[in-house]
Amino acid sequence: MTLNFAASSASASASSSSSCEFPLARYIDSHQEEYVELLRDWVAIESDSSNILKRPELHRMMEMAAQKLRQMGGTVELVDIGEQELPGGQTLALPKVVTGQFGSDPNKHTVCVYGHVDVQPAKLEDGWATEPYNLTEINGNLYGRGASDNKAPVLAWIHAVEAYQALSMELPVNVKFVIEGMEETGSNGLDAMILAQRDSFFSDVDYIIISDCGWLSRRPALTYGTRGNCYFFAEVEGPKQDLHSGVYGGTVIEPMTDLIGILDTLISPNGKILVPGIREAVAPLSDEEWRMYQDIQFDMENYKNKIGVTQLMYTNKVDLLAHMWRYPTVSIHGIEGAFSDPGTKTVIPAKVTAKFSIRQVPDMDPAMVKKQVTDYLHSVFAKRKSPNKLKVTMVIGAKPWLADTQHPLYEAGKAAVKRVFDTDPDLIREGGTIPIARTFQDVTGKSIIMMPIGGFDDGLHSQNEKMSRYNYIEGTKLFIAYLNEVSQIQKTSV
Amino acid sequence: MTLNFAASSASASASSSSSCEFPLARYIDSHQEEYVELLRDWVAIESDSSNILKRPELHRMMEMAAQKLRQMGGTVELVDIGEQELPGGQTLALPKVVTGQFGSDPNKHTVCVYGHVDVQPAKLEDGWATEPYNLTEINGNLYGRGASDNKAPVLAWIHAVEAYQALSMELPVNVKFVIEGMEETGSNGLDAMILAQRDSFFSDVDYIIISDCGWLSRRPALTYGTRGNCYFFAEVEGPKQDLHSGVYGGTVIEPMTDLIGILDTLISPNGKILVPGIREAVAPLSDEEWRMYQDIQFDMENYKNKIGVTQLMYTNKVDLLAHMWRYPTVSIHGIEGAFSDPGTKTVIPAKVTAKFSIRQVPDMDPAMVKKQVTDYLHSVFAKRKSPNKLKVTMVIGAKPWLADTQHPLYEAGKAAVKRVFDTDPDLIREGGTIPIARTFQDVTGKSIIMMPIGGFDDGLHSQNEKMSRYNYIEGTKLFIAYLNEVSQIQKTSV
Repeated sequence: MTLNFAASSASASASSSSSCEFPLARYIDSHQEEYVELLRDWVAIESDSSNILKRPELHRMMEMAAQKLRQMGGTVELVDIGEQELPGGQTLALPKVVTGQFGSDPNKHTVCVYGHVDVQPAKLEDGWATEPYNLTEINGNLYGRGASDNKAPVLAWIHAVEAYQALSMELPVNVKFVIEGMEETGSNGLDAMILAQRDSFFSDVDYIIISDCGWLSRRPALTYGTRGNCYFFAEVEGPKQDLHSGVYGGTVIEPMTDLIGILDTLISPNGKILVPGIREAVAPLSDEEWRMYQDIQFDMENYKNKIGVTQLMYTNKVDLLAHMWRYPTVSIHGIEGAFSDPGTKTVIPAKVTAKFSIRQVPDMDPAMVKKQVTDYLHSVFAKRKSPNKLKVTMVIGAKPWLADTQHPLYEAGKAAVKRVFDTDPDLIREGGTIPIARTFQDVTGKSIIMMPIGGFDDGLHSQNEKMSRYNYIEGTKLFIAYLNEVSQIQKTSV
Repeated sequence: MTLNFAASSASASASSSSSCEFPLARYIDSHQEEYVELLRDWVAIESDSSNILKRPELHRMMEMAAQKLRQMGGTVELVDIGEQELPGGQTLALPKVVTGQFGSDPNKHTVCVYGHVDVQPAKLEDGWATEPYNLTEINGNLYGRGASDNKAPVLAWIHAVEAYQALSMELPVNVKFVIEGMEETGSNGLDAMILAQRDSFFSDVDYIIISDCGWLSRRPALTYGTRGNCYFFAEVEGPKQDLHSGVYGGTVIEPMTDLIGILDTLISPNGKILVPGIREAVAPLSDEEWRMYQDIQFDMENYKNKIGVTQLMYTNKVDLLAHMWRYPTVSIHGIEGAFSDPGTKTVIPAKVTAKFSIRQVPDMDPAMVKKQVTDYLHSVFAKRKSPNKLKVTMVIGAKPWLADTQHPLYEAGKAAVKRVFDTDPDLIREGGTIPIARTFQDVTGKSIIMMPIGGFDDGLHSQNEKMSRYNYIEGTKLFIAYLNEVSQIQKTSV
């Protein structure tokens, strides 16, 4: 089913601009094969920002995004954001940030669309049904790494602008783009770039729009908060090289045993974070929040089935949503340096590094979390009286973000969703982190909205990530409708 | 320094056979470049038995070993030992076992030399200074995976026999070979083969010689015991696929948290095994053993330096040697299915499998250990009340082995060491496992000796494994001397 906005909406506004949406919607529908092909080209680039060996691919991806905006006649820049320092002390060029501008009419609002084109790691052998970097359509779903996070949403914004151009229609607002390539590893270098361009590129921006998240159910959603992320490396180093576990086992204090021992003190079996001070810093759940969560459309059974578990951490909706969005959590992602291949290896690994992260929320502070975790792990480790060396590093420290859902920007969002999908959106938060939201807020002082078009089951960061053709195409129409709605916001209310 | 046997030995026996050793020793010395080249050819084959993708290489390795023995005129067979069942239910052909025979004089003793030509996994990026499968000589050391474990010792035995042939000298004993390709993963299929050939190939064997271990110091050694190995997989399975830790963190009970939790209950920080029943089954340390350990040449400082640690699990020699050889230990090798690459990935792994092993000793029994570990982990896991599924599998269950050091076979070994190296050997045990020793003992009832030629710092199973040229070449001479000594054992004492 394809909904064409304004066709069946009861609340369609009578604004002059919305009447022009019919030909735009038709244009989007009739060009969808091109959009899928372009997404295929983008997904084919293994722009994994966490793997330094893939850095050339990432540079290529940024160039490709810039080239697309240039072809559309935008004012485009590839902004150098410097270098990244590697653990060994070497440096590596960061992928440039792409900025683009379409229109500069001072009588119009100016929106800045933020997106990223880097991706999480993916390998076929992780359990993908299809090649992760070869976009594959099955039953209306477009499978590929980065399809939903965040290449298709970035492209949908591009298609929205392009449609106006193709039909020789004037853009209702000025549109700027900020497209980065380090989002998946903490947006290294972007904060400084935003700060540097606060009074130039960002000076005339009224609103910032981010579409780097997903719906909660089949119902469209607007997102008003995200959790932050403190990502840690805990490295335990012992012998100078790996040892045969038969020959040496029993004589050395093994780094793996130490590491397992300290990891086990982070979180209890029922999800309670054991690091002192973390839980105390969390803002209490208000009655109003409780009621709001209670009203959200969320099917616990469906959620369980989607994940494929028989039991969730909490059995009622409010507790579950609260722990998904507004309470912190600890996840242990894995251990580098130990034996992780199939088969057997009788090895005592000499140096092992655990990767874990704490999703944090208001009123936690990353700098404080870093100190709390580091102090705690060192104190736990000290009790073991091990001769091995522990090093705790926080490699990502991204703040949480929270918006006002009564702001005109959100009212415009609600109206756009209503027009395109003929339903009110859920107002939701996001368990994941979009660090840049907080930076935009802090640095530019502008209002931000998150308008997701990804499906609730897109499998971000996991195997078989996908974007449905429906969400991709209808999402493009939503963006067009939203540009129109934003143009109706009173200039004075900015 | 190259020692030529009998040259400076005070205890050189006056036997007629030992006088023939001079030309043999000269022959070995003058052919050492060929021996190194042949070792290079063997090391170049990535015969990793733990990686099913390398199975063709392993088959090629067995064929190469057989071909070498055939070229020497031996009676050679490639014995089919059937298939291996993979976790998914599929089957894979096991590498054939190579048997060879040189001489069948009923008036002579018959020794059977056992060795293996499969290797542990190795990758350059694990921290090797040289390509692991390209034998590289640096300062008299030959670096390469499998150089010491166990390709050079197998070749040294082959060179020993070949030297007699080249000089048209009669072998003092009949020599048989059993060379397998699954030692590193538990000698799958070999037990059955030995049982099947007990009354054929093994019927005329008097003694079994194994050279799959190393010295304890720079002093040569004879080995009279090995620990067994019970290797476990503990798999925790939760969601049906990996999840984004931001989006889902806090709502699901994470398999990694469960796995870390149960692994942490296996062993205490000071090395005490916490699985009930394990410690109770260990034979007590006798006063005689204590005295024997006290006399062994062993430099704790040197051992610490070699490993590169500031502190060992025990501070006195006897405790340390005892825990290296005759007490059990637990090593956690790593976790499959979690994020183990460099960089960051914000993932909740859906299915994680820990690999750990328990080295066991008399009077422990693998079947009992399997039950103890499985029951214990399930009981610990049950207390967590997790909805995830735990599966504990014992994939290797190899028994320990212990010999009588007063046996004529060991007396012959002491004499051979004395002649070649002009010193008495240390009588030692081996912390590692040579499962087949126990099988040979149980099935054939024959006496077994372990005569290592590997150095104490060869780095078995770890990065930068090596065999020194000195040990390789002098080891070959030791084997020649030993064949002569064994020929002097009274037939009646067999």
